[in-house]
Amino acid sequence: MGNTYGNTFRITTFGESHGKAIGVTIDGCPAGLAIDEAFIQSELDRRKPGQSKITTQRKEGDKAEILSGIFEGKSTGTPMAIVIYNEDQKSKDYAHIAEKFRPSHADYTYQQKYGHRDYRGGGRSSARETAARVAAGAIAKLFLKQIGVEINAYVSQTGHIRLDKQYWELDLSNTENNIVRCPDTETADRMISLIDKVRKDQDTIGGVVSCVITGTPVGLGEPVFDKLHAELGKAMLSINAVKGFEYGSGFAGVNMTGSQHNDLFEHNEGKTTTRTNHSGGIQGGISNGEDIYFNVAFKPVATIMQDQESVDVHGNAVTVSGKGRHDPCVVPRAVPIVEAMAALVIADFYLLNKASKI
Amino acid sequence: MGNTYGNTFRITTFGESHGKAIGVTIDGCPAGLAIDEAFIQSELDRRKPGQSKITTQRKEGDKAEILSGIFEGKSTGTPMAIVIYNEDQKSKDYAHIAEKFRPSHADYTYQQKYGHRDYRGGGRSSARETAARVAAGAIAKLFLKQIGVEINAYVSQTGHIRLDKQYWELDLSNTENNIVRCPDTETADRMISLIDKVRKDQDTIGGVVSCVITGTPVGLGEPVFDKLHAELGKAMLSINAVKGFEYGSGFAGVNMTGSQHNDLFEHNEGKTTTRTNHSGGIQGGISNGEDIYFNVAFKPVATIMQDQESVDVHGNAVTVSGKGRHDPCVVPRAVPIVEAMAALVIADFYLLNKASKI
Amino acid sequence: MGNTYGNTFRITTFGESHGKAIGVTIDGCPAGLAIDEAFIQSELDRRKPGQSKITTQRKEGDKAEILSGIFEGKSTGTPMAIVIYNEDQKSKDYAHIAEKFRPSHADYTYQQKYGHRDYRGGGRSSARETAARVAAGAIAKLFLKQIGVEINAYVSQTGHIRLDKQYWELDLSNTENNIVRCPDTETADRMISLIDKVRKDQDTIGGVVSCVITGTPVGLGEPVFDKLHAELGKAMLSINAVKGFEYGSGFAGVNMTGSQHNDLFEHNEGKTTTRTNHSGGIQGGISNGEDIYFNVAFKPVATIMQDQESVDVHGNAVTVSGKGRHDPCVVPRAVPIVEAMAALVIADFYLLNKASKI
Amino acid sequence: MGNTYGNTFRITTFGESHGKAIGVTIDGCPAGLAIDEAFIQSELDRRKPGQSKITTQRKEGDKAEILSGIFEGKSTGTPMAIVIYNEDQKSKDYAHIAEKFRPSHADYTYQQKYGHRDYRGGGRSSARETAARVAAGAIAKLFLKQIGVEINAYVSQTGHIRLDKQYWELDLSNTENNIVRCPDTETADRMISLIDKVRKDQDTIGGVVSCVITGTPVGLGEPVFDKLHAELGKAMLSINAVKGFEYGSGFAGVNMTGSQHNDLFEHNEGKTTTRTNHSGGIQGGISNGEDIYFNVAFKPVATIMQDQESVDVHGNAVTVSGKGRHDPCVVPRAVPIVEAMAALVIADFYLLNKASKI
Repeated sequence: MGNTYGNTFRITTFGESHGKAIGVTIDGCPAGLAIDEAFIQSELDRRKPGQSKITTQRKEGDKAEILSGIFEGKSTGTPMAIVIYNEDQKSKDYAHIAEKFRPSHADYTYQQKYGHRDYRGGGRSSARETAARVAAGAIAKLFLKQIGVEINAYVSQTGHIRLDKQYWELDLSNTENNIVRCPDTETADRMISLIDKVRKDQDTIGGVVSCVITGTPVGLGEPVFDKLHAELGKAMLSINAVKGFEYGSGFAGVNMTGSQHNDLFEHNEGKTTTRTNHSGGIQGGISNGEDIYFNVAFKPVATIMQDQESVDVHGNAVTVSGKGRHDPCVVPRAVPIVEAMAALVIADFYLLNKASKI
Repeated sequence: MGNTYGNTFRITTFGESHGKAIGVTIDGCPAGLAIDEAFIQSELDRRKPGQSKITTQRKEGDKAEILSGIFEGKSTGTPMAIVIYNEDQKSKDYAHIAEKFRPSHADYTYQQKYGHRDYRGGGRSSARETAARVAAGAIAKLFLKQIGVEINAYVSQTGHIRLDKQYWELDLSNTENNIVRCPDTETADRMISLIDKVRKDQDTIGGVVSCVITGTPVGLGEPVFDKLHAELGKAMLSINAVKGFEYGSGFAGVNMTGSQHNDLFEHNEGKTTTRTNHSGGIQGGISNGEDIYFNVAFKPVATIMQDQESVDVHGNAVTVSGKGRHDPCVVPRAVPIVEAMAALVIADFYLLNKASKI
Repeated sequence: MGNTYGNTFRITTFGESHGKAIGVTIDGCPAGLAIDEAFIQSELDRRKPGQSKITTQRKEGDKAEILSGIFEGKSTGTPMAIVIYNEDQKSKDYAHIAEKFRPSHADYTYQQKYGHRDYRGGGRSSARETAARVAAGAIAKLFLKQIGVEINAYVSQTGHIRLDKQYWELDLSNTENNIVRCPDTETADRMISLIDKVRKDQDTIGGVVSCVITGTPVGLGEPVFDKLHAELGKAMLSINAVKGFEYGSGFAGVNMTGSQHNDLFEHNEGKTTTRTNHSGGIQGGISNGEDIYFNVAFKPVATIMQDQESVDVHGNAVTVSGKGRHDPCVVPRAVPIVEAMAALVIADFYLLNKASKI
Repeated sequence: MGNTYGNTFRITTFGESHGKAIGVTIDGCPAGLAIDEAFIQSELDRRKPGQSKITTQRKEGDKAEILSGIFEGKSTGTPMAIVIYNEDQKSKDYAHIAEKFRPSHADYTYQQKYGHRDYRGGGRSSARETAARVAAGAIAKLFLKQIGVEINAYVSQTGHIRLDKQYWELDLSNTENNIVRCPDTETADRMISLIDKVRKDQDTIGGVVSCVITGTPVGLGEPVFDKLHAELGKAMLSINAVKGFEYGSGFAGVNMTGSQHNDLFEHNEGKTTTRTNHSGGIQGGISNGEDIYFNVAFKPVATIMQDQESVDVHGNAVTVSGKGRHDPCVVPRAVPIVEAMAALVIADFYLLNKASKI
């Protein structure tokens, strides 16, 4: 029963990769918001398969259809339901995988937890579910645009190739200019080469998506448990294949001393700001108005084009063969997913924060 | 309004560091559980200040008083309230800090969010709040003991000193044998020396707490949003000073290929297990029965014994002077806090999982 | 953001009466439940318009389409989404009502709360939304059937015509045998005559639906706030046009003395039961294993075929003319809605109760 | 796990009648609210036992102690914990009742649900828990006062004696002038005589509390499930001994025709109002700015001073003897409880409604 995210701006996703459809309901989007359907589609297009040679070659239209909650182009405050019908979902034969547990997939755990599962293409555990998040996140982004919040994610690492610049040294408007979504062209080229090589090796590789949120008002986050970064962390960790989350100075901050790490306040032109931003825009779990930035680690895709030893539901030793068209590295397509989840978190906290003072 | 954690096993903490008391209510603890009050106190003692030369020298009794929910030594299924009265909370003079924003503390963000705050010792944002979590976590641990789950955290890094062994190479029963709570004696000595040096420098340093959960049944976790590791991540990130979370292969997994990273299944003696455990005991957001392990990064403590530039509530430049008795490094005392939050997560998912099948 | 009901068995409905579709997501239905789609449809057919001469003559197919959560005929533990597409939703002209507030409808309050609303046929506030509840309730009923719970509602009053028998004096299998859904044939005939007369008068009339739940296990309900009858009450009051709820002795119990009202326990054949059942099967907010029974009061339908004075969004005096095809009395069609909401409540509490003891 | 009420303004109560203490945490009260502790105490005094000859003669101080969430007399936005220590809780001998199920109490259901219970004085199921609600409701009332909302409840029926005037025909400022809390002096006298007679008969009697909420802004309530009246209903039904709830025209509205029942809108002095108010101030689940009014039915107190047949935990036939000092009729003391729950509902919806529009 964990398919709902958010308190005030609240989504529930549904659907399996090879069922009739996937989709999402969005409850709590404030009324009066102009809904740009082309924008929703453009966000879905950033996530969809078949975009480039370094993503899966599957072709899916991922056409979003809004069933409710909008009237004359604007939100009405009632739930929006968005459905994305799956195409050709019955065309493939999954019998060969029905009883086998693919290594490092969710086949075994779903089987044990539920006793009965849709094994086709991972069913509910497929990353296809994230298309629903991207659709909902697009609505959240439209809302955040109204209040001046902007969210930009990009690929900062694939395998051992790591972008050695911080986000403030980069021109993030370059992100969409290359297929790996790394705003540094030179590094992007090396990343693309690596992914291409890994793909030819019939293997996969992990990566890191970095994200920057600018324009966040001071005051978002609800301590002590629903700290802004705790919810961002949960939201990111809920994305398929994510293994780690850090914000601000992150794991590297461990090596620093307090005197190095502390962000000194200063006051200029009527505004209190910090001289440095190791805090990553969040102090005590509440946004302080500085840029929020964080990193999300993705493991290598579990589906590889190689034979692997495994077991089946009866405990027999079996061989799982790599088949189909899969991503050699998920991070290029994960960029809009990270942005979507970040947008959902910020929108929710923005609305919650309206109740903090009398 | 973010002071509640958990769904079925649900806690709400309250209290400020220099108010009358801190405490917690626990709703949803199953009835019939024998409550060992001495154990609760022993957990609080692991967290309390003044334990050793490398923690703050403040002395606080942290005596837990259970007000409800227990009858004849056993839980009744009704809410337990646990109160820890603050001692001498009025003895100090906080006037000097009333209007100043301490760098990298929550003073500024609380002031902006709420407009009115208890500035004494950080008030609600003080890590003192975590004592309430430890008390609640002790109840969760007592419950988990009934179902064979054990949780062990330890310090794996302080500043640049990093334990270069994995948990399976360590004897975790050593953890409590030294004051830094690192199970490797030689590394522990180096950590203690570093912290002692940092303390003498009137500075602070960060660290990493690692945690291992054994005996978890298969099936815990509620995809797609409430994945087991997503909740573990949120729970850890909600602890004061935490900057990052990774589980299983974590950020290092990014460098691996799928063929290296995948955990092959095997079946022995009626049980399906994995040959390796890069998954960290969680696949598709659901426990697979292997050990769950993760790392939590803590930043250096913001309170340093040095003068720092800052601003006050009026925007004036001020100097914040280090005063009082504070920890040079939080991780030794964070070990029981990490365990407590992990216990709360596992207990909650254990109860939720009872509803997964007909 | 109030479009979600339930904790463990949790539904979210969406859709407007004249938008593309209405529907529901169901999260938390246990895996392994055989889903009888014909049964879902039959429940929808009991609610749909155009059934008889005493209901609205509008014809709507109300064909449910399940998009997810079911594989090979059984639930998988993942969310089910059910969509009911609206037919001919664009065919009518609602311009005449766009700016007018229909008396005792939700036009005015939605306008003020949201600032922007779908005025066609009441939009989100239309009782059409309850079709989604009936679909979800059908799933809950299928689950409850597995555990021996049965739910039967019937019409016990329309206007001044009141069935003067208690449920145990009636043969509830007669309920579906007449168009007013009153199990007493003689009373049913009088009710039908009254509704027919009211309809000819171009007016409407209220009614009461009574409901009995049998076979409920002891222990359902979560005091102190989520008492079983409190949730039943909320669930019923959330149905369109409901003005009151009472269970067991209800309002009439006020006149009784404690010595008359108390239900004495007795123990027979290994089972503790009560001699009377003024408690309505619930004591201290928890089911005691006796029959649960309650009454739900419905006001007369607000849409009448008469001219009424009102105002428009600009504050001008206007006349609202009755148009279209509407129910003269909602209670015959409300019977399956009451049952559906009752089923959702019981299913949720059944799952929650699994966590009450160690 | 049902001990939490509310979303944004959220309370959790704890405590048993004969444990150490009862109490409540309040999370989400906006910061900056002046907290009048004397007012909290005065509300508790309205509820406390021993007030008059028609209530129980038990004497309890019910002294509220606020442990957190307030600084320099104002709320800080962090959780308030309020504790009321029980006096002399160990003084009585409850051994005689330990294994017996008192008729129409919660002894049997708690025993079956939890397997282990505090049987002293009803434990958690005792109406003593409502003192915690009254304390929290007092905070909500202080908040509502800021926004012009006033809540007044009164006794409108005890047994067969029913006040035949509507609230608008009464001077509600008289309510506190007599011990039965009925604003009509003549009816009050008859009610007092009845209760006194019932008490002498060693019996008990039921009653009705009516409540009026004035000054509510338009727009409160979150359809479709969290309708304002649905939450009011749940809140009232969660109070001990409540059997029914109706608002506006209520059960009597069933007899009316639509043309009688509809509340025609009119517009005067810049304000849209309704000519009548059968809607009870709520349309489509959202407040329309008119007075909100409702009735709450209470059953006769289950504890009577007579011998009653029952069974014990082993299934043996036993006699339960009436002992102790109990209320012959709860409604006089229920008046502040009804007001408190109403205040909590309105405060919560007021805060939620801030998020309804962009």
